[in-house]
Amino acid sequence: MMQRVLAAMAGGFMGLMISGPALAGTVTSDGADLILKTKGGFEVTTADGDYSFKVGGRLMLDYNAYDGVINTVEGQTGSDIWFRRARLEIKGKAKDWSYLMSYNLTGSGSIDQLHASYNGFGKMTVLTMGQQKEGFGLDDTGSSKWITGIERALASDAFDTGNNVGLKLHGGNDAISYSLGVYKESIDADDNALDTGVTGRIVYRPIIDDDLLVHLGAGFTARDGEFDSLGARLGVRGGEDRTANRSRVRYAGGLSGDEQQSYNLEAAATFGQAHIQAEYFSSEVSGATAPDLEADGYYLQLGWVLTGENRGYKNGAGVFDKIKPSGPGGAWEVFARYDAFNVDGAEADPAITVEGGDATVITLGANWYINSNAKLSLNYVSSETDQLINGEDDGDAIVARLQFAF
Amino acid sequence: MMQRVLAAMAGGFMGLMISGPALAGTVTSDGADLILKTKGGFEVTTADGDYSFKVGGRLMLDYNAYDGVINTVEGQTGSDIWFRRARLEIKGKAKDWSYLMSYNLTGSGSIDQLHASYNGFGKMTVLTMGQQKEGFGLDDTGSSKWITGIERALASDAFDTGNNVGLKLHGGNDAISYSLGVYKESIDADDNALDTGVTGRIVYRPIIDDDLLVHLGAGFTARDGEFDSLGARLGVRGGEDRTANRSRVRYAGGLSGDEQQSYNLEAAATFGQAHIQAEYFSSEVSGATAPDLEADGYYLQLGWVLTGENRGYKNGAGVFDKIKPSGPGGAWEVFARYDAFNVDGAEADPAITVEGGDATVITLGANWYINSNAKLSLNYVSSETDQLINGEDDGDAIVARLQFAF
Amino acid sequence: MMQRVLAAMAGGFMGLMISGPALAGTVTSDGADLILKTKGGFEVTTADGDYSFKVGGRLMLDYNAYDGVINTVEGQTGSDIWFRRARLEIKGKAKDWSYLMSYNLTGSGSIDQLHASYNGFGKMTVLTMGQQKEGFGLDDTGSSKWITGIERALASDAFDTGNNVGLKLHGGNDAISYSLGVYKESIDADDNALDTGVTGRIVYRPIIDDDLLVHLGAGFTARDGEFDSLGARLGVRGGEDRTANRSRVRYAGGLSGDEQQSYNLEAAATFGQAHIQAEYFSSEVSGATAPDLEADGYYLQLGWVLTGENRGYKNGAGVFDKIKPSGPGGAWEVFARYDAFNVDGAEADPAITVEGGDATVITLGANWYINSNAKLSLNYVSSETDQLINGEDDGDAIVARLQFAF
Repeated sequence: MMQRVLAAMAGGFMGLMISGPALAGTVTSDGADLILKTKGGFEVTTADGDYSFKVGGRLMLDYNAYDGVINTVEGQTGSDIWFRRARLEIKGKAKDWSYLMSYNLTGSGSIDQLHASYNGFGKMTVLTMGQQKEGFGLDDTGSSKWITGIERALASDAFDTGNNVGLKLHGGNDAISYSLGVYKESIDADDNALDTGVTGRIVYRPIIDDDLLVHLGAGFTARDGEFDSLGARLGVRGGEDRTANRSRVRYAGGLSGDEQQSYNLEAAATFGQAHIQAEYFSSEVSGATAPDLEADGYYLQLGWVLTGENRGYKNGAGVFDKIKPSGPGGAWEVFARYDAFNVDGAEADPAITVEGGDATVITLGANWYINSNAKLSLNYVSSETDQLINGEDDGDAIVARLQFAF
Repeated sequence: MMQRVLAAMAGGFMGLMISGPALAGTVTSDGADLILKTKGGFEVTTADGDYSFKVGGRLMLDYNAYDGVINTVEGQTGSDIWFRRARLEIKGKAKDWSYLMSYNLTGSGSIDQLHASYNGFGKMTVLTMGQQKEGFGLDDTGSSKWITGIERALASDAFDTGNNVGLKLHGGNDAISYSLGVYKESIDADDNALDTGVTGRIVYRPIIDDDLLVHLGAGFTARDGEFDSLGARLGVRGGEDRTANRSRVRYAGGLSGDEQQSYNLEAAATFGQAHIQAEYFSSEVSGATAPDLEADGYYLQLGWVLTGENRGYKNGAGVFDKIKPSGPGGAWEVFARYDAFNVDGAEADPAITVEGGDATVITLGANWYINSNAKLSLNYVSSETDQLINGEDDGDAIVARLQFAF
Repeated sequence: MMQRVLAAMAGGFMGLMISGPALAGTVTSDGADLILKTKGGFEVTTADGDYSFKVGGRLMLDYNAYDGVINTVEGQTGSDIWFRRARLEIKGKAKDWSYLMSYNLTGSGSIDQLHASYNGFGKMTVLTMGQQKEGFGLDDTGSSKWITGIERALASDAFDTGNNVGLKLHGGNDAISYSLGVYKESIDADDNALDTGVTGRIVYRPIIDDDLLVHLGAGFTARDGEFDSLGARLGVRGGEDRTANRSRVRYAGGLSGDEQQSYNLEAAATFGQAHIQAEYFSSEVSGATAPDLEADGYYLQLGWVLTGENRGYKNGAGVFDKIKPSGPGGAWEVFARYDAFNVDGAEADPAITVEGGDATVITLGANWYINSNAKLSLNYVSSETDQLINGEDDGDAIVARLQFAF
């Protein structure tokens, strides 16, 4: 009783002394000292850093309009407004362990990432278990929130491994980032056994200063499973119903390959407010009873932050990060990107069908980082294919995005 | 080190001084002063109001039993117990921006609402982007948690626009509330282009006192897309499997209209513990190759809060809000509603099929607002149709709901 | 203004006095004194215990490899790595009411449990409304996080009622736990009416000390609906695609029973670091136009916590709970379980098909409770059936699980 009276008195006193409402109550913890934070989301951390919990999320609301070879309907302009991504994200830490739960709210809901990590061996040897990014390619490994274009390049789209369930060993310091993991590709219908992929990536940073960063990287992935095509969207997703064409090479007549091998090379740099980025990918699908499918692709991207901020970078994952606006008007960035996707050889083989063939896309765009939560993007996309798809071999698109993250 | 010792000492001291357990730790923020709140959910706000984060949710557990023309099986009584709605809701604020993430847990999960708003132009010109209520009709615009009946009226059900992805400009002060927006209706299969709807609503409150509120409103929606029927459930949803009939008029033989236009009128008032509410809706579907479909409907509802509380109201959206129980026994409310839904003309056209035809429903009910989280409702529903559906033209139902919100 | 200056001064002063960063702000509540907690999740409780809110979750990442009669493909070894369970869990309290929202992130998302409880009548008469465990069987009623084996026993799997929507009255003290409820089984297609089950369970604890606990229980469930088989997995789930066989008895030719009655007996004890547990189940499906299907089953499990901790127990639900590691190396447990599932009589009836027939499974396993969040488990499973399934009648499996809960 005495304790409660004291508590009430102290609560009243604190409320009076500190901030405003006379009815304010005290907030304590059950043990460890805690530090709270909200910038629209919520985060709590113990002062000793042993435990933490954070809730956040993202929404990306896209509008696009696209014609010519991009639209699956000949001679028409397709368009849509829809959520490109919408996620609820919860993560936390419990001493040597950490976890991430990222859930897609779009479609009928699905797991984006869900994993636990053991951090007890130090930052250079983190073990992550569960559904995660495999870490293949610079733009594919970075967050969709902080890529420069609204969509990733043709080659990044074509050769992405996606998020899969597996085990990954990874780490990073100032000079080096690496990852090496084994992942579930699919279940083989012949024996119900697991088909897997092995994926690795290494990044070297010869220079890493505030004003000058040089990033060089390489990666590979070798996968067992059932593979029937290699292809890339023509720079535009095509709305919620994905009504945009792809350039691709695929097996005819129900054939499939049982092995895929891909590698890539990455080079990027930031010089103060300027940044440059390029990647090359090459992939081959092969099988005992089918000819090989081969494709490669690359892109070159140049960007300029008009308001003077630097592009952020994360050593641990070896990827670019957010641009933090330094002034009240936000940060402005312009960029240009040239993408190429090439289908190699084999066009004359009757077991292989080519749609569109080689493709190139030019993207010009601007990003307005309004504040640390909101971002507006506008891209112009111009696409060409080597061969006609439904009677057309070029097309244009306008894509706009509102991104809000908390 | 010294800092940690001081922190530990301070933590121990604070714990002793303030409230109870000897092991209590301190709670601070990373910068701005914070105010926390829990009433079963959780809310954190910065003392300056710049940032906030809130987690809440709702569950509505319904039982119903219905016979006659309401049940799709002739001569039988249908019944079910199921979740009418179950949602997790997260919302927050970051200076001029706010967001809402409301996710349906029922079915296999879906987005209820997901949007970001820019509030920098003031309360009269808020811009909301994303999946949201269009704002057409008084009961349809208000929260499902605080409608008087368990289900909305026939006309509110028949002419509701649902929640759609789009852009809405809206605002409200003491006298006026308005909203005007453009929304995605569907994607046209002919060209992959976006079909849209434009929806507007205006509300005028000539009187707004604690004990007397008068609400007058009107709205319209004009939509492009593919429309094949106009119909309303007969006052009962019919359980999880929706095994209840509808009264409706629809095209025969695969015809469809490509345009829908609807308007509505709203009038409502609260006189102390009494409240009255009425709406009229009219809608027309038309097309180049199809005759017009026409329907209208209205309802009149009278309610009385036995325990003396007023029905809440939100100026911003121009809708009714919760009844807050003033005593420990909760608040009790009784109400009666008369609904009509009418199919106009055209019954003789062979391209048009009428099921049930004109329909009326009388609903009598009671609500027990147990506390600010829990609510129990019981409704008796009596339905009639102009024409037989499966050999019956009247039916009755009992519907009960437990609502828990946090 | 003056208030804000004071608040800022107090904030600065508090930050200096208490813990570390000079920019630390104060944290107060809007009224009641609050106590916060994070161990990777987040919990807030009012000091008077009237209100609370908690966010948590679990992931179970499983690897398994299985051959022989277990795999649906003859002569092959099936395997998979996948999420056996992944859930986001929110629960809270508002005076006499509490709620739980547990959502499955796997598949395309689904409700695991969602219910509100009225606790105003005391701990012996809690009323829970919504989707919940029915409470039939000891291992089925306990949390999947704290069962000893990676999968529950054959009989627990075969006769589990699952989580259903309904009303349950339940309670527990030191000596007794009970539950009695009525639940939705299905909707009858003949009349759209609700088919229900009634399920009850009683547990008696003649001894309950820290070092000695004796648990005796019995339960029943009687259900209306449509039932076409009785069966059990052979100790292994078979990966995400469930490519493992079942032993079962089922109707041939589209027949079905309309009634199912099951009962069970439970006995368990902990003697310090040792524990023993056994259950027996028996079930019968019957119908007006179909012969009876009958099956029963039992298991006996022995466990030993090498590091000396006791198995936890929850009086309220009458179930076992977590093992809390007492040392920095975590807790280690080994166990063995013998399962039997028997198909009774009727094998000669042409209306009934038997697959596999009687089955037995031996499971040997070890659990490493790394800390209060992480757990690693390894099980060896050996299965036998009375009759060949696809040419095989025995098989083995290895199952491993990483569990992370917050």
